[in-house]
Amino acid sequence: MSYRLAELAEKVGGEVRGDPDRQVDGIRGLETAGPRDLSFFTHRRYRKAAISSKAGALLVSPQVVDMEHDLLVVPDPYYTLAELLDLIYPQPSKPAGVHATAVIGEGAVVDPSASVGPCAVIGERSRLAAEVEIRAHVVVGRDCEIGRETVLFPGVVIYDDVEIGERCRVHSGVVVGSDGFGYAQHEGVHVKLKHVGRVVVEDDVEIGANSAIDRALLDETRIGAGSKVDNLVQIGHNVSLGCGCLLVSQSGISGSTRLGDGVIVAGQSGLSGHLVLGDGVQVAAKSAVFKSVEAGKKVAGIPATEASSWLRQQALVRRIVELRRRIATLERSAETRRQEIES
Amino acid sequence: MSYRLAELAEKVGGEVRGDPDRQVDGIRGLETAGPRDLSFFTHRRYRKAAISSKAGALLVSPQVVDMEHDLLVVPDPYYTLAELLDLIYPQPSKPAGVHATAVIGEGAVVDPSASVGPCAVIGERSRLAAEVEIRAHVVVGRDCEIGRETVLFPGVVIYDDVEIGERCRVHSGVVVGSDGFGYAQHEGVHVKLKHVGRVVVEDDVEIGANSAIDRALLDETRIGAGSKVDNLVQIGHNVSLGCGCLLVSQSGISGSTRLGDGVIVAGQSGLSGHLVLGDGVQVAAKSAVFKSVEAGKKVAGIPATEASSWLRQQALVRRIVELRRRIATLERSAETRRQEIES
Amino acid sequence: MSYRLAELAEKVGGEVRGDPDRQVDGIRGLETAGPRDLSFFTHRRYRKAAISSKAGALLVSPQVVDMEHDLLVVPDPYYTLAELLDLIYPQPSKPAGVHATAVIGEGAVVDPSASVGPCAVIGERSRLAAEVEIRAHVVVGRDCEIGRETVLFPGVVIYDDVEIGERCRVHSGVVVGSDGFGYAQHEGVHVKLKHVGRVVVEDDVEIGANSAIDRALLDETRIGAGSKVDNLVQIGHNVSLGCGCLLVSQSGISGSTRLGDGVIVAGQSGLSGHLVLGDGVQVAAKSAVFKSVEAGKKVAGIPATEASSWLRQQALVRRIVELRRRIATLERSAETRRQEIES
Repeated sequence: MSYRLAELAEKVGGEVRGDPDRQVDGIRGLETAGPRDLSFFTHRRYRKAAISSKAGALLVSPQVVDMEHDLLVVPDPYYTLAELLDLIYPQPSKPAGVHATAVIGEGAVVDPSASVGPCAVIGERSRLAAEVEIRAHVVVGRDCEIGRETVLFPGVVIYDDVEIGERCRVHSGVVVGSDGFGYAQHEGVHVKLKHVGRVVVEDDVEIGANSAIDRALLDETRIGAGSKVDNLVQIGHNVSLGCGCLLVSQSGISGSTRLGDGVIVAGQSGLSGHLVLGDGVQVAAKSAVFKSVEAGKKVAGIPATEASSWLRQQALVRRIVELRRRIATLERSAETRRQEIES
Repeated sequence: MSYRLAELAEKVGGEVRGDPDRQVDGIRGLETAGPRDLSFFTHRRYRKAAISSKAGALLVSPQVVDMEHDLLVVPDPYYTLAELLDLIYPQPSKPAGVHATAVIGEGAVVDPSASVGPCAVIGERSRLAAEVEIRAHVVVGRDCEIGRETVLFPGVVIYDDVEIGERCRVHSGVVVGSDGFGYAQHEGVHVKLKHVGRVVVEDDVEIGANSAIDRALLDETRIGAGSKVDNLVQIGHNVSLGCGCLLVSQSGISGSTRLGDGVIVAGQSGLSGHLVLGDGVQVAAKSAVFKSVEAGKKVAGIPATEASSWLRQQALVRRIVELRRRIATLERSAETRRQEIES
Repeated sequence: MSYRLAELAEKVGGEVRGDPDRQVDGIRGLETAGPRDLSFFTHRRYRKAAISSKAGALLVSPQVVDMEHDLLVVPDPYYTLAELLDLIYPQPSKPAGVHATAVIGEGAVVDPSASVGPCAVIGERSRLAAEVEIRAHVVVGRDCEIGRETVLFPGVVIYDDVEIGERCRVHSGVVVGSDGFGYAQHEGVHVKLKHVGRVVVEDDVEIGANSAIDRALLDETRIGAGSKVDNLVQIGHNVSLGCGCLLVSQSGISGSTRLGDGVIVAGQSGLSGHLVLGDGVQVAAKSAVFKSVEAGKKVAGIPATEASSWLRQQALVRRIVELRRRIATLERSAETRRQEIES
């Protein structure tokens, strides 16, 4: 889609500095944008790249208006970028209907406005709501519910008895509802605990490629509304996430751990089982959390501790060679003094 | 399935305290169980939840019989729970036969009691034993053997020349037999080593969603009988696991490393290549093991060291700011004394 | 394929010590090789296994010729092993053509020499070059390019607008082109940024099972020629890899980070976003890199620092209990002295 800069400003509630008739056909990065592209400049670190950018126009905040480009000035450029991407790159309309190669189980209900792609398999009694998109090679088990406008990308597997909310996006390779890792030790053997619980994914959740969400042993594993899960994330059985949580790539949440609302777990971090993390807790990248964390705290480290303490500790660990030297110096002068006294 | 409490007690070798005619239709967690559910109470930490639980009956150990609920008392409640889950939630019988959309390669042998789901692909000369369940969209390569009663969940990929034992459960997204990460450096280029080995998964192994097991360069990668592998675990080429090992989620075993029997590798831990871990070794979560470990040892940390030492070290690292202060105090008093002596 | 030892020597430019007519049918490990197998011995640690090996012949370097076996002596045995594996285990020829169950989108172009396996789905306008192998259950999106001789193993998913070079190998479970993890915070909600960029995988790249490569927000994510990516690796949006990089299993590269040529990221390491790693940087296993790294440096640790410093630091951390004891000793003798002075 193509717009004049002034049109875009009107749609997103911004202000133009420069040529209001500047034509915008696309959005590109600073280095690759051309005269018919809009680019964006939100961080000092990219100032040089912004100045030399060949972009026709720049999306900026009111703090950064001393540029020679035509500008679209908005209070929150990053959020406006989200709006502009939807505007300039509209979703291609997806034809509704069930592909000839799809396999629909007995008693399954597919809304006429939903689409089911090639070779997709929908289990018995499962229900796909309006405008659901089931892409190629998706497998949905029995007795599942998929909420309206939700998209399951190619190759997603949903086990039996799983409920996915509205407007969710579940990326390729995601597995929802596989058995949790639960065994009883008995006479030297790991005896499997049959997992009879389920998974509930609430509305507006996005799940990244190749992540895995285990079903509960009993009851349910639950992903709160508006939470976003990155790629290759592990969510164990009976875990519960509040609303608006962010789990970054390769993080893992062990069984029965409960996260409040707005919890952020950064990349490659792990939480052990049966913990409670209060609302707004932030876990730094590559941490291992072995204890529950109160609401609002930031933690870091292995084992995780308050983030500010961890930073101080790590700064000193990097100077531990110096600490040892200072101890050795003290020991030498103590020794010298002892010899002086004795002599 | 529905049972009287006394019937359950008889089947699992337990004792009823309270109403033997209490009807049990399901098993639920303490918070969600109702009057026709059995729940279980095995850990002090859940005592309060147990007291206020609306469960009709509780599964408990002889140590915890001071509850007002009807009780099913057994020596090992967690193991009995495994038995009861199988009893109350029997597996729905799977109709045998090959789905019309499945593709069976030339010379492949499918036992009449096996089932092959929609769009599954079975390679040439592969053999599926009795009661094997191949779910939708599974791909089995050429010359594979799948042992009796083994279940491959939707979307599993087994490369050529792989052998899977009996009663295994391989969850969705698992890849068995892909090439290991092996290259020869030659004139600045990474030259691929063709992997001509195979993978053998012994009996009673469960493999969690999206885990990957590489084939050997030569010879074989082997997963010992009764071992359980969680989700998103990496097992490199030529790795060998003994019997009854547990690899927890997101752990990784590098090439040619050998684990004895009963080794436990906790979540997000990694083992480097060409190591030997003796029987019963335990690796704590988030550890990195760079050296072989003798049988029976527990290790932790990055790099991993004996777990008890690591705990002591980490306790002191958390107090390193205090150690530095104590050094500074000593330095100041030494300085003061020097000045006193000099003056 | 079967060869005389002298024939092999001629083909790979080596020298025979022993019987030039020794027949070689296979290549096996030292412990499993028999009289008609070649095995290889390249590392002191395996000397004992080599001596007792029943292999008919051993591939060795000129440094290790004091063995009683027939020997094939070459300057670089590991590289020669790569050559011999290709020679003795030739690729079975793949019949060209499109399987009856495959679904080819409108305007897609499949070279006559390419093969498309059972249930594979090729999107509209995508192009498969000569001798491409698309295995069973692969899904290729719209407007993709797959370069000649590239192999996509079963179950690979390529999203729309992705370009894969020549002679690449993409293993099962890999997802290329899923959306990056990008959201704008707005009134307490994570608002999705539509990802309109693409992914370019250059020539001779291998990608291991279940790895994920996100598409760019704008512009492109790029994997440089000859780079090798192991299993379960995460590559974020807008990441760029130079040529010949190695990313070992379960490592992760966050968004917009740029790697030069020949960078090695060892297993379970993570790089945060917007970093630059110069040519030849090496990141040790289980590290977390939070800052850019100059060309040629080796880093390790959490947070990562120069590898040699990190080793020294960790050696002292392991002795921190001793450091504390030395401090306590100094404190006691200082206290004793103070009391002596005061008395």
